[in-house]
Amino acid sequence: MELNDWVLSPGSRNAPITLTFANDSYFNCESVVDERSAAFIALGKSIVTKKATVICCTSGSAPLNYSPAISEAYYQCIPILVITADRPAKWIDNGEGQSINQVNVFSNFCVASHNISSEDELQHIEKVFEEISKNLNQKRKGPIHLNIAFDEPLYQTTENPFKVNLNITDVVSTNECNLTENQIHEWNSYQRILILCGQMTESEGLLFWLKDLNSDPRVVVLTETISNVRDFQFVNCIDRTISRIRLEIDKPLLVVTLGGAIVSKKIKSLIRSLEKLNHWHVDEFGLSINVFNKLSNTFSCPPSSFVRKIVSYNDFTQVSNFKSEWMTASFIAEERHEQFLKEAKWSDLKVFKTIVDTMPEGINLHMGNSSVVRYIQLYNPINSITYYGNRGVSGIDGCTSTAVGVASKSDKINLLISGDLSFVYDVNAFWNNISKSNLKVIIINNNGGGIFRIIPGPQNTGVFEERFEVGNTADIPELCKAHGLEVVSVGEEGALEEALVWLYSKSNSARVIEIITPATINSDILSSYFLSLNK
Amino acid sequence: MELNDWVLSPGSRNAPITLTFANDSYFNCESVVDERSAAFIALGKSIVTKKATVICCTSGSAPLNYSPAISEAYYQCIPILVITADRPAKWIDNGEGQSINQVNVFSNFCVASHNISSEDELQHIEKVFEEISKNLNQKRKGPIHLNIAFDEPLYQTTENPFKVNLNITDVVSTNECNLTENQIHEWNSYQRILILCGQMTESEGLLFWLKDLNSDPRVVVLTETISNVRDFQFVNCIDRTISRIRLEIDKPLLVVTLGGAIVSKKIKSLIRSLEKLNHWHVDEFGLSINVFNKLSNTFSCPPSSFVRKIVSYNDFTQVSNFKSEWMTASFIAEERHEQFLKEAKWSDLKVFKTIVDTMPEGINLHMGNSSVVRYIQLYNPINSITYYGNRGVSGIDGCTSTAVGVASKSDKINLLISGDLSFVYDVNAFWNNISKSNLKVIIINNNGGGIFRIIPGPQNTGVFEERFEVGNTADIPELCKAHGLEVVSVGEEGALEEALVWLYSKSNSARVIEIITPATINSDILSSYFLSLNK
Repeated sequence: MELNDWVLSPGSRNAPITLTFANDSYFNCESVVDERSAAFIALGKSIVTKKATVICCTSGSAPLNYSPAISEAYYQCIPILVITADRPAKWIDNGEGQSINQVNVFSNFCVASHNISSEDELQHIEKVFEEISKNLNQKRKGPIHLNIAFDEPLYQTTENPFKVNLNITDVVSTNECNLTENQIHEWNSYQRILILCGQMTESEGLLFWLKDLNSDPRVVVLTETISNVRDFQFVNCIDRTISRIRLEIDKPLLVVTLGGAIVSKKIKSLIRSLEKLNHWHVDEFGLSINVFNKLSNTFSCPPSSFVRKIVSYNDFTQVSNFKSEWMTASFIAEERHEQFLKEAKWSDLKVFKTIVDTMPEGINLHMGNSSVVRYIQLYNPINSITYYGNRGVSGIDGCTSTAVGVASKSDKINLLISGDLSFVYDVNAFWNNISKSNLKVIIINNNGGGIFRIIPGPQNTGVFEERFEVGNTADIPELCKAHGLEVVSVGEEGALEEALVWLYSKSNSARVIEIITPATINSDILSSYFLSLNK
Repeated sequence: MELNDWVLSPGSRNAPITLTFANDSYFNCESVVDERSAAFIALGKSIVTKKATVICCTSGSAPLNYSPAISEAYYQCIPILVITADRPAKWIDNGEGQSINQVNVFSNFCVASHNISSEDELQHIEKVFEEISKNLNQKRKGPIHLNIAFDEPLYQTTENPFKVNLNITDVVSTNECNLTENQIHEWNSYQRILILCGQMTESEGLLFWLKDLNSDPRVVVLTETISNVRDFQFVNCIDRTISRIRLEIDKPLLVVTLGGAIVSKKIKSLIRSLEKLNHWHVDEFGLSINVFNKLSNTFSCPPSSFVRKIVSYNDFTQVSNFKSEWMTASFIAEERHEQFLKEAKWSDLKVFKTIVDTMPEGINLHMGNSSVVRYIQLYNPINSITYYGNRGVSGIDGCTSTAVGVASKSDKINLLISGDLSFVYDVNAFWNNISKSNLKVIIINNNGGGIFRIIPGPQNTGVFEERFEVGNTADIPELCKAHGLEVVSVGEEGALEEALVWLYSKSNSARVIEIITPATINSDILSSYFLSLNK
C-alpha cells in the first residue's frame, strides 16, 4: 500500500510536511482550506481507493475541524491517516497562538493515536511508521492519528525533517470464515431466516453466494440500497415491503446482518420488538454490532466468505413458506408503489421517481442524509449503480465533500442528491481547485429540515417551523454561482425532465439542479403512500 | 447567574431539551443549523454577557462540529455550557445512526465534563447541575460539557424529562491580589520594568491604576490592541515601535504580562531572546502562562487588583531612562508611520489607514485572523472602540460567527474586518435568522492566504501559490447575495471612502464591503513600511 493521496490544508506549522510531499509529483496532493471539508473529501477518496488517504493540517483548532469526518470514517471502517502538526510540548497551554492539547484528541473515534512531541522524537519517526503500518494492516480499519510537533524554522528548504518511507507493506490475511458444528446445526434448525445486508462496497462474490443460498425457501434476503447487493429475488426495498408484513406468520427466528449500517428504522424496530429471535452478525472488520440487543454470534470475516461457507453446509431440502410470504409482500408493495406514483402530485416522493427513472447506467449515486437516503430506498435499486452515503454516523455535515472526494478518484458520473440544509451546511465542498466536471448535484429544496415533517413527533410541539424545520435562509442558486457551478431551478415535472437531460450532459464544472418542492404537502403525500402500500 | 441565552441546533435526540426551553419565552433561543457556527455564535454572546450561553445539539458528529469554538472559548476563558444529546449507552458502538462515543469528547479543552448515561441517571439531573453551578463559579472559566442520553419517545408533550433549575447561584469571590514582602522588594529593585497587556475586556479600573504606575520612569506599559487598555503615554503599537528598540540599552529586567493572549510575535521573540530577565504573569483565571519560558511568579487575581497593590507599594522616587527610551522609539515610529502612509500605494496596509481613520466612535471592532489583527495593531487604537478577536486559539474558523454572536447581544455597531479565506470559511455565520442589521463587514480580498506572503519562508518553497496562499475560488459578492447581505466591491481609494459612508449608514441587513487589494505587492509595501520605521 502506498500513501500517495494527500489532502493538505495550508498552514505554517505543517509546512515541513507540505514541503516534503507537495513538491514531489509522485504524490497526488489537493489543497483544501476548510479542514472540515478537507477531511470528508479524503474520506471520499479512501472509499474509492480502499487505501488510507493522508490529511494534514496546522495546529490549534484546525485539527478539530477534522473531527466530524474522522468519526464518520471510524464507523464506516475507512482508513485515513490524520497528520496534525503541533508545537513542541513545552509551548502548549502557555499562551502560544494556534495551540491546544492535541494529544489523543480523536481517541474516541480512531483506531490508533500516535504522538511525536519533539524534534528528538522526530528522529525516530520510522518506528512510529512501523506502528502505523501495523495499524493499517489490522482487521479493524479506520482513521489513525499522528500528531507531530515541529520546532521553528518551519520552512527549511535544504533538508526536510519529515523523512519517512510511505510504502506500507500489505499483510494479506486470509480472513476465512469459521463455522462450528454447533453453529451449522443451529443454522439448519431454523425455519425462518432473514439475511439483512447493511452498508457494503464488496458485492460480486457475495451476490453469487447469496443467490445460491436464496434458493432455500427458509431464507429471505433483505438488502439496503447502500449494501450494493441486489437481485430481483431479494427484498430490495425494505421500508415499502415491511408495511405488508404480518408479524404473526412472517416473523424470522434468526436474523443475520451482513456488513455495516442499516438505514431502515422500520426493520430495526420490527426486529427489536420480536421475542425468541437470535441475531448473528458478520463483517470483515471484527465489529460486534448488537443492533437489536439480541446478538448471539459474531463472525469476523468478509460476508461473502460467511455465505459461501453457509451454502456448503446448508440443508436445501427443508420446506418453509417464509420466503414466499416476504416475496409476495414485496411484489404487491411494488405494484402499489407503481400505482401510487403514477398519480402522485409534485412532491419530494414524486420527484424521486423522475430522478430514479432517468439516472444513467453505471453512475455513482451519493445520497444525502437524512430524507434523501430514505426516499431513495423506496425505489428499486439499479444494478449498475453504486450507492454511497455517509451512514457511519449519518451526519449532514459532509455529504457533499465526501461526494467530491469520491468523484475525484472516479471516472464515472457522480450524482449527489442532497437536501437543502445538507447542501448549504457543506457548501465549502466546492471551495477548492479539485476538478468536479463529473459531479452532478440535485438539491431537493423543501425549505428546511423536511425530515422533521416525516418522522412522528416534532409537528405537534408548537415550535415546529422555528426549532425543527428551521428553514433555509440561503439562496441556493446564488450559492452555486459563488462557487462557479452551473445551476438551474425547477418547480414542475416538465422542467425537471428537461433539466435532467442538461444535468447529465458533458460540462466543465459541476452542474446543479435545485428542485423546489412544497414542504407542507410532502409529508401528507408520503403518509398516503405508506397507507396505499398496505391496502 | 441565569442561563437564559440558548443557541439550539435542530435535531431529534435533543428534542426534549429544545421543547423545554424553546417553548418558554423567558429564554432567548436562536436556532442555528451548522453546529460549528452555532458554537462560535454562542461564544460571541458569552463574551458580551460574561455569562454562560447554552448550546445544544443532537447526537453523532453534530457535537464534534462544536469543537473548534469550544477550544477557542477554553483558551479565552469564556464560559459556555455545551449540552450534547446522546443515545442510551447500550446503543453506542452498536450500529445506531448518529451515535459515537460522546463521553469526554471535549475533555482536552473544557473545564469540566459531565455525563448522564440513562433515563435513571436523568432523575438526578439536579445534582449534576449543582456540580455545573460549582464549575461556573470556579476561578478558571471556560466551556463545560454535559452529555445527556435520552431514550425514545423524544417528543413528549405532557411531561418533559429535562427539568432543572437554571438559576445558578453566583458565588462572589473577592479575588484580591496578595503580594509578599519579598515580591515588593523584588519589584522595587528593578530599574527596567515592562508591563505587557494581553487580551482583556476589563479596562476601567485597570487603566486608572496603570496610568498611576506609569508615572514611574522605570515602567513602560505596552498594550495589545485587544487588551482594550490604552493611553497616549503607553506604547500602544508594539510591532511598529519594536523595530526601533536597541536591545543593549532598552532591555527590560522584569516583564509583567497582564491578561490573555499576546498577538505580537515580535515582542514574544524579543523577550524570549533576552537573558537575565524575570517574568511575572497576572490574570484572574489562575492560569500559569509561561509564554517566554522565563516565568518566575504568577498572580491569580484581576490585573487591576495587582496593579493597584503594586502602586501602593511602588517606590516612585527612582531614576531610570527606560520609559523615555521606549516612548521616544514609540513617538518616532508613529511619525515614520504617518509619513509612510501618506505616500503609500493602494495595498492591504494602505486600506487599513482609510478604514481606521473613518471608523465611527464607540463601535465594537472584530478583527479576523491572522493578517487583519496584525495590520490593525500597526495603527493607534481608538479609545472609544472595543477590540475583539479570536486569539484564544487564533483560528480562522469562526471569526464571523463570533462577531454575529457579539452583535446579537449589543446595541452598538459591530464592524468585522476579515480576510477573504476567513470570510468564506465561516460564511455559514449568516445562515440563520439572527438579526444582523448592526453588523458591518469589511473583507480584505487579496485572493488567498496573504499571511503567507508576509511571514518569512513560504515564498521560496516552489509551491507557494499552490500550497500556501492557495487562492480563493469563491466569488465573495455572490456569496453575500446568497445570504441576503448588501455588498459592494471596491478597488481604489475614492470608491472605498464612498463605500465606507454607505457601510455605516442604517440598514436592515448586514452590509459588506469587499476591498480588492493586489496580493503581489501587499507584502513589498509592508516590508518597505517596516524598513521606513527603522530609518
